[in-house]
Amino acid sequence: MAVEKKDAEGFLTIDYNNLTAEVVGPGGLTPEDLASLKEPLAAAVKDLTSRYRQGLLPFLDLPKDAKLAKQCQKLAQSGREKYTDILVLGIGGSALGSTAIYSALQPLASRSAKGKKGYPRLIVADNIDPEGFATHLETLDPQTTLVNVISKSGATAETMSQFMILFDWLKKKGGKNALTENLLVTTDPTSGVLRQIADDLDLVTLPIPPGVGGRFSVLTAVGLAPLALAGVNIEGLLAGAEVAASDGLKNSPSNKAALFAGLNWLLTTQKNRDNLIFIPYSDALAKVADWFIQLWNESLGKGLKLDGSENLLAQTAAKALGATDQHSQLQMWMEGPANKTVLFLGVDKLRTDLKIPAIFKEHEALAYLGGQTLGQLLSYEQKGTARALAENHRPNLTLTLPTISPQTVGYLLQTLEIATVISGTLYGVDPLDQPGVELGKKFTYGLMGREGFSDYFKRYEQGRSAKKKYIVQ
Amino acid sequence: MAVEKKDAEGFLTIDYNNLTAEVVGPGGLTPEDLASLKEPLAAAVKDLTSRYRQGLLPFLDLPKDAKLAKQCQKLAQSGREKYTDILVLGIGGSALGSTAIYSALQPLASRSAKGKKGYPRLIVADNIDPEGFATHLETLDPQTTLVNVISKSGATAETMSQFMILFDWLKKKGGKNALTENLLVTTDPTSGVLRQIADDLDLVTLPIPPGVGGRFSVLTAVGLAPLALAGVNIEGLLAGAEVAASDGLKNSPSNKAALFAGLNWLLTTQKNRDNLIFIPYSDALAKVADWFIQLWNESLGKGLKLDGSENLLAQTAAKALGATDQHSQLQMWMEGPANKTVLFLGVDKLRTDLKIPAIFKEHEALAYLGGQTLGQLLSYEQKGTARALAENHRPNLTLTLPTISPQTVGYLLQTLEIATVISGTLYGVDPLDQPGVELGKKFTYGLMGREGFSDYFKRYEQGRSAKKKYIVQ
Repeated sequence: MAVEKKDAEGFLTIDYNNLTAEVVGPGGLTPEDLASLKEPLAAAVKDLTSRYRQGLLPFLDLPKDAKLAKQCQKLAQSGREKYTDILVLGIGGSALGSTAIYSALQPLASRSAKGKKGYPRLIVADNIDPEGFATHLETLDPQTTLVNVISKSGATAETMSQFMILFDWLKKKGGKNALTENLLVTTDPTSGVLRQIADDLDLVTLPIPPGVGGRFSVLTAVGLAPLALAGVNIEGLLAGAEVAASDGLKNSPSNKAALFAGLNWLLTTQKNRDNLIFIPYSDALAKVADWFIQLWNESLGKGLKLDGSENLLAQTAAKALGATDQHSQLQMWMEGPANKTVLFLGVDKLRTDLKIPAIFKEHEALAYLGGQTLGQLLSYEQKGTARALAENHRPNLTLTLPTISPQTVGYLLQTLEIATVISGTLYGVDPLDQPGVELGKKFTYGLMGREGFSDYFKRYEQGRSAKKKYIVQ
Repeated sequence: MAVEKKDAEGFLTIDYNNLTAEVVGPGGLTPEDLASLKEPLAAAVKDLTSRYRQGLLPFLDLPKDAKLAKQCQKLAQSGREKYTDILVLGIGGSALGSTAIYSALQPLASRSAKGKKGYPRLIVADNIDPEGFATHLETLDPQTTLVNVISKSGATAETMSQFMILFDWLKKKGGKNALTENLLVTTDPTSGVLRQIADDLDLVTLPIPPGVGGRFSVLTAVGLAPLALAGVNIEGLLAGAEVAASDGLKNSPSNKAALFAGLNWLLTTQKNRDNLIFIPYSDALAKVADWFIQLWNESLGKGLKLDGSENLLAQTAAKALGATDQHSQLQMWMEGPANKTVLFLGVDKLRTDLKIPAIFKEHEALAYLGGQTLGQLLSYEQKGTARALAENHRPNLTLTLPTISPQTVGYLLQTLEIATVISGTLYGVDPLDQPGVELGKKFTYGLMGREGFSDYFKRYEQGRSAKKKYIVQ
């Protein structure tokens, strides 16, 4: 999986000209602001390295796990003949990574009906809306579909409900050996109810390493198995991520993960820019924004600092898609409250381009388009928008991939994961937990009548009473 | 198109208990806050009525345009036999409305490969990324596809580039009469380059009424024609919208458009909640969030008030999807900066439900799921999440549709459009213009070499020079 240093240099470019006060004026980062980053960033990278060496950040070692890669490849090899479809049952971190990578690396396949030629199609079912979920049961063949259920705890209500429905479906409509042939269980290696069921029924399983949380798990079996099955070059992905892991541990001004973390932290804590709009200019990279939003928001939206004090600052990430959302959200970014940083993700060289024919030359409003390409227009729209924002004193930042490849996508995702951990250190919060999502789950358990949660049912009912005046029909 | 008043009462429910200080504590709206709404809301509704009567808000009369509805139905009738696919070329307001409604009302069809049985499939091409756009050329049949190009000005760079490519494609690969049989031009009735071309070549056209801007145009030919062609019940849609238009003009505490506008305005201007997270708990309604975001952000993100003074306040809308994004963004909403209102959109009665089989009863962590339905779980997750946010002092608001139908969707969209205009009055800005998007377009024209924009090319180049130190590779 070696990648030459020279190649790696071209995996990702960060251009932060449009964040500087020199370019955007007041609201931008001054040379003093930038100089002030040096110390905290060096400390945060040191902290990262030390935690990594203590084995506390196993996600950094995932790209080197040749054994897992081999296992997934083997699975993929035998699965290629057997399955027409891979149906992933998962939510949040069990769904967003494989969706992002599949969309990025097989954009045409994910639009056409049949997946990459010669490989099963990947479908990620990440919601429980029966109106949506029912279509899978109606359109998939239980004889030729591999159901890959992914839940680390094995208790995720959404995923387990899906699993119970699909388990029944396979049992009733799949082949004789459907439970062992058409079911792949990705879960904790030793604990949890899904592990127990898998062991009891002798199902095929893959492990999720205990120290790796959902949003950092795309390079575990969670992402690698379905992606390999669907024909994605996971070696390339891992090779790119490995370079990123090595780059991200360096105390150097060219550490892109650290720079990304530091710039956004400054904007949030010094310039009141507590929103980050992530706008890829690429249909294929649209889902990378969804993946990033979970990573960033769930890691950094914390009410308490590590020292127990209240945390008031975080940057909320939201997604958009270029050029489309120039016609939807740009007005707000240009003239709305000065509380945003816009993060562009562009691609230097697209894999396909389309020429605009040189017709309608007699019409001035169209003449300039003919003879150019859609790719040129897309790229110029990105540049023109970034420049317009800058002139309007709206800081923005541009990430550029030289091209969309397994290597560059692997590099990008791993860099953003490292940037997230470094950000946690800068804000003084734990980027690896998510305590805030528990209360909602407990109310849901209470409403669903789960044993031991009747108090939450009562609490819900009490909270609901006597306020009909605030309901308008 | 008459709808009984009794039915209309059930089209939409707004529950704002979880916005009140009584429920969420500090940060919520107090009885005094709510009382303070009365006067400005009455004034805003009065202003709405007076502008409507002056003919300045023609979008309010669209539901009554029986002639247009008939024209679209006729088109649909003949198109049913002729076309397998309708390909809309449009961006922003020319794409988001039909996408939202098609996804809402034909959710299964939009997921399967073939559209509603007996009707052409609707595909909305709203981006210029060649990697995505090329798939349309590869998968569609120029003999049986109706290309519907939609641009009011006729000069939208993205849409016109797509059009030039598809015009060429139809001419070369379509049938003998492809330009007149397979092309539908929706544009200004009298002016613009697209109108000129259509008139010159004698193409089939539909008008976009001059006084209706893109984001308010879903009930013009922009939305109605492709939706009718794809088999959507546009009469029902219009009937629901007509009731909403009538309700929205009333000076009454049960005016839902006014209430929605007023509550969000208070939260933004009095409680520092300048972000609005719109989270439908329905796959089918996911795209309604995209449509709403354009409507809200482009209408209200204004740098200047109508009186020429600086405008500093606006609420930025962002989208999410329930239950999925509980596993992605909820942590940030629960514990991140107290700058958000969460807007839930739920459905009382889904069109399909799926039973979770009563298996794995021996496992406590799963036993409570068996025998219930995915629809119940989805609904309880929404309620549990809203309650958890409220207990954590995070204001949130719930809109509920009794069911997803043409009538309720029409009512919802028209109500939100009216709420947007009322919001403009409350903030003192013009909700109908979008001056902030022009500068970016000019830079793009400059970069593309359009005649008359070379100054912008120079300005772009100057802005770019001498800052290599802020680029990291």
